[in-house]
Amino acid sequence: MSMARDLARLFQPNSVAVIGASSSSAKISYCCVESLVEGGFGDRIYPVSPHSSEILGLRVYPSVASIPYDVDMAIVAVAAGLVPSVLEECAREGIKGAVIITSGFKELGTEWGAKLQGDIVDIANRARISIIGPNTMGVVNPHQHLNATFLPSFKDVTPGHIAVITQSGGVCSFMLHSAINENVGISLAASLGNRANVDFADAIEYLGDHPQTRTIAVHIEGVDNPRLVVDSASRLVCRKPVVAYKPWGAIPAKAAFSHTGSLAGRHEAYEAAFRQAGVVTAQDTTELMDVAKALALQPPAQGNRVAVLSLQAGPGMIAASACHRCGLALADPSRQVKDSLTTLAVSPSFSYNPIDLAGAFTRSGADHSLWLEILELVLSDECVDAGLLSALYHRLDRPFIESVASLVGQRGLAKPLVVCRDSPLGAARAEIAMLEENGVPVYPTPDRAVRAVAGLVRYGSVIERMK
Amino acid sequence: MSMARDLARLFQPNSVAVIGASSSSAKISYCCVESLVEGGFGDRIYPVSPHSSEILGLRVYPSVASIPYDVDMAIVAVAAGLVPSVLEECAREGIKGAVIITSGFKELGTEWGAKLQGDIVDIANRARISIIGPNTMGVVNPHQHLNATFLPSFKDVTPGHIAVITQSGGVCSFMLHSAINENVGISLAASLGNRANVDFADAIEYLGDHPQTRTIAVHIEGVDNPRLVVDSASRLVCRKPVVAYKPWGAIPAKAAFSHTGSLAGRHEAYEAAFRQAGVVTAQDTTELMDVAKALALQPPAQGNRVAVLSLQAGPGMIAASACHRCGLALADPSRQVKDSLTTLAVSPSFSYNPIDLAGAFTRSGADHSLWLEILELVLSDECVDAGLLSALYHRLDRPFIESVASLVGQRGLAKPLVVCRDSPLGAARAEIAMLEENGVPVYPTPDRAVRAVAGLVRYGSVIERMK
Repeated sequence: MSMARDLARLFQPNSVAVIGASSSSAKISYCCVESLVEGGFGDRIYPVSPHSSEILGLRVYPSVASIPYDVDMAIVAVAAGLVPSVLEECAREGIKGAVIITSGFKELGTEWGAKLQGDIVDIANRARISIIGPNTMGVVNPHQHLNATFLPSFKDVTPGHIAVITQSGGVCSFMLHSAINENVGISLAASLGNRANVDFADAIEYLGDHPQTRTIAVHIEGVDNPRLVVDSASRLVCRKPVVAYKPWGAIPAKAAFSHTGSLAGRHEAYEAAFRQAGVVTAQDTTELMDVAKALALQPPAQGNRVAVLSLQAGPGMIAASACHRCGLALADPSRQVKDSLTTLAVSPSFSYNPIDLAGAFTRSGADHSLWLEILELVLSDECVDAGLLSALYHRLDRPFIESVASLVGQRGLAKPLVVCRDSPLGAARAEIAMLEENGVPVYPTPDRAVRAVAGLVRYGSVIERMK
Repeated sequence: MSMARDLARLFQPNSVAVIGASSSSAKISYCCVESLVEGGFGDRIYPVSPHSSEILGLRVYPSVASIPYDVDMAIVAVAAGLVPSVLEECAREGIKGAVIITSGFKELGTEWGAKLQGDIVDIANRARISIIGPNTMGVVNPHQHLNATFLPSFKDVTPGHIAVITQSGGVCSFMLHSAINENVGISLAASLGNRANVDFADAIEYLGDHPQTRTIAVHIEGVDNPRLVVDSASRLVCRKPVVAYKPWGAIPAKAAFSHTGSLAGRHEAYEAAFRQAGVVTAQDTTELMDVAKALALQPPAQGNRVAVLSLQAGPGMIAASACHRCGLALADPSRQVKDSLTTLAVSPSFSYNPIDLAGAFTRSGADHSLWLEILELVLSDECVDAGLLSALYHRLDRPFIESVASLVGQRGLAKPLVVCRDSPLGAARAEIAMLEENGVPVYPTPDRAVRAVAGLVRYGSVIERMK
C-alpha cells in the first residue's frame, strides 16, 4: 500500500478533536483532553462525547459532525468495536489525521482483532487518513505545544532538536520523562503502536524534512518489513543521523506480538541491517538519547582517538576505562603537544591521557586560563579525534565551565567535545545550559559521556563509508 | 603497620578544627568551613588561621593550641610542606583523627612526595592519629550532619543505609550528587585518597559494625595489598553485603599512580579476588549504587528466575531483554500459576513472562486489586525467584503503587521485588518514597531495575556459597 500521506496534519495540527472524551478524571480519555489543555495547545481543542457538555472548561460536542470548525486531527479513545464507525465519521468530515489510543486490535492475536484492524486500515486508506496507532500513546510536538497523548506530564517536555519515534507508548513515555528531568530538547515524539498505516519508514521519511529535527532516535521492537525502515533511514543518514535501539536478545516472540502485533525477528538481522543503512545503534534507551543529543549538537568524529581531560582524576580514569570498553582508543598526543604539556605541567609524574588538569596543571588554586589553553592545544593535535572534558560539579569551577562555553561559542574547537558535569539539585543547570547552547553536550557521569563520544565516532565512520 | 585505630573520631566526631581555613570564598579551605556550617554540624567548628579572625560568623583561632575545647578531628588544608608540622601540633593537642585535603604527596611520583607522605605516616602512627588522605575529598556522615569535605553541595545528602568508600574524591563527589538527585540515603561516605594509614580494609572493618550501614559500596582504583581488602570484606559479606566497582580494562598505570599513588593492577586479578571474597561487583558507578540500594532494602534472591510484570508492555519487554543480557532467566511459571493467569486474563494471546498487567489483565480501566492478586500469585510461585514490576509514571496508577507499598508493608511478599518507576520533575516522589520505606527499591529505567535484581541474585549465590 502506498499513499501520499499528509503527516503534517498528524504532527502539526492546528485543531484537535478528542473523540470519546470522558468527564471523569479517572479515565484515560479525560487525560487526553487534560494533556492538550495543560500542554498549552490553546482553544482549538474539541472534545466529542454524547454524555458531557463540558470538560475542563471546554465545550463538548455530541458528534464530530457537530463541530463547527475545521479539524486537522482526531484523538480516538472509544471502545475498539466503535473505532471503525468513528473513523467513517472522521472521513465524512474530512479529517485527515487520527491518533487511535484504543487497544484491542491486531495485538490481541485473534481473528477478530486482526479483522478490526484490517477494517480501520481500509477505511483510513480510502479516506486518506493517516493513523498513529491503534494501541498508541500518541504524539507530542513541543514546538507546537501539542501533547496529543494521555500523559499530561509531557507538558514539561522542552522544545529541541531530537525526534523520538518508538514502537511502545510506555517506552516513549519514560524516554520523554527522562528528557524532561535532564532538560533534553525534543522536536517531535510519537509511539507508533500497531502501525495501521503509518510505520517507521513513513515517520523517518517525514522527519528527514522536518526543520526542527536534527537527529532521529528510534526504539523498535520488530516490524513486518525491516527493509522499508532501513531504506528510509539510509536515504537520510548522511544529512540527519538516525540512532536506533532494539531490545537485545531473547524477547519472547509472543510478548512482542501481543504488544503491538509485530514480529520481533532476529536481533542480529536487525543489527546487520542497521549497520548497512548507516544507522547508529544503542544498547539501551539512555544511550539512545545520549547519542542522539551528541549528534544533534556536535559534528561526527573523524576517528576513534579520544583525549580525556579532567578536573578530578578519578572520573578521568573512569572515562579512560570506559573508552577502552567502548572500543575507543586513548589518543597518544604528538611529540609537540607532549612537549608543550611537559612545559606547562607542575607535576613531574603526570599522564598524557587522561590529563588531570587540576592535579597536574594548577600552579596555585584554580588556573582556568591555563586549562583552556591545554584544552585547545590538545584538541588541535592531529593525533586526537575527539575530546572528553570531565568537570564534575564544584561551584568554584563554574567560571571555567563558562569560559569553555564562551571559547566554543566564539571560535569553536578543532574537534568534537563532550563534557561530563553533574548537577546536584540543578546547581549546575545554568552553566550546563550555556555549554549546550554553544553546542557542547553535557552528561552527568563519565560512562555516559564516553558512550556519547562513541556515538560521534560511529557516526563519523558512517559518513566516511557512505559519502 | 598495625594499630588499633579509633575511626569513630574520624567518622563521628563531636568537634572539628579546620586548619588552614581561608576567609576567601574562592579557596578550597574556605569551602571546608562552608561545608561544615551549611551541613548543619553546629557550633563545634573551629577554623584555624593566623590570617583571619572570623569566617562565616565563626571565631577563628590562630593555632590549634589556642582552641579552648576538645577537638576530635582536624581537617587539614595547608600547603603540603606544612602538613608534618600541623600534624605534630595535632599530636600535641591530642587530636586523634585528621582529614588531609592537601595533595602533593606520594601521588607526585617523586622522592620528595614519597618522603613527605612517609613523614606524616610516622607522625600519625606515633601519635595514634587516623588519617583520611592525604589528597582526599574528606568524609560525609549525614546521620551526624557532618560534611567534612570541600563540597558544600553535600549538605543535601540524605541520611540512609549505604556506605560509600571511594579511592577518588571526584568519584565520591559525583556518586553523592547522584544520590542526592535520586534521593538515595547514605550512612557514611569517604574518599580515601593516598591512604596514609587508613586503607579500604580499615574502612570496611569499621563499617562492619557501623549500625547505620546496611551495605557497603566501594570504588577502588588499585591498592598495594588487595589481599587485605578482600580479607576484610570476606569476614563480613554474609551479614553486610559489599559491592565493588573497579574501573575496567586499560587504565594507564601512570594515571592511577599519579592520582592516588596506587598500583592499578590487573583487572582480572581483582575480579577473581572479589568473587572469592563474596564481593558483588558492578560495571559502573550507577550499577554500584543501584545494587547497593537493592541489597540495603531486599533479601537476596535464591535463584536467577525473574518474573517481569509491567503496566506498559514495551518497558516490560526491555526488562525481559535486559534479564537475558544480565544472565538472568525469565521464570517459566508453574502449571498451576499459568492456569490461574489464563483464568484471569482478558487477552487470549498473552505472555506468561513478561506479564503485561494493563494489557492482558484489565477488564475495564485500571484494575488494581486484580493486578495485586497477580503480583502475589506470581511471586509465591516456586518457579519464581524474584520479581520486577515495571510501572512507569502515570498519575492514574498512583493508587496501585501505593497499594503495592501497603501490601509489602503489611504482609510482605514471598520473593524479593524491585520496581521500575520514573518520576518526571519529582511527580512520583511520594509513592516512590512509600515503596522504599516499605523496603522495595525503585529505579527509573527497566535496565537499571534489572541490574539491581541481578545484584540480588549474585548476592544470593554468595550467601549460598559462603554459608
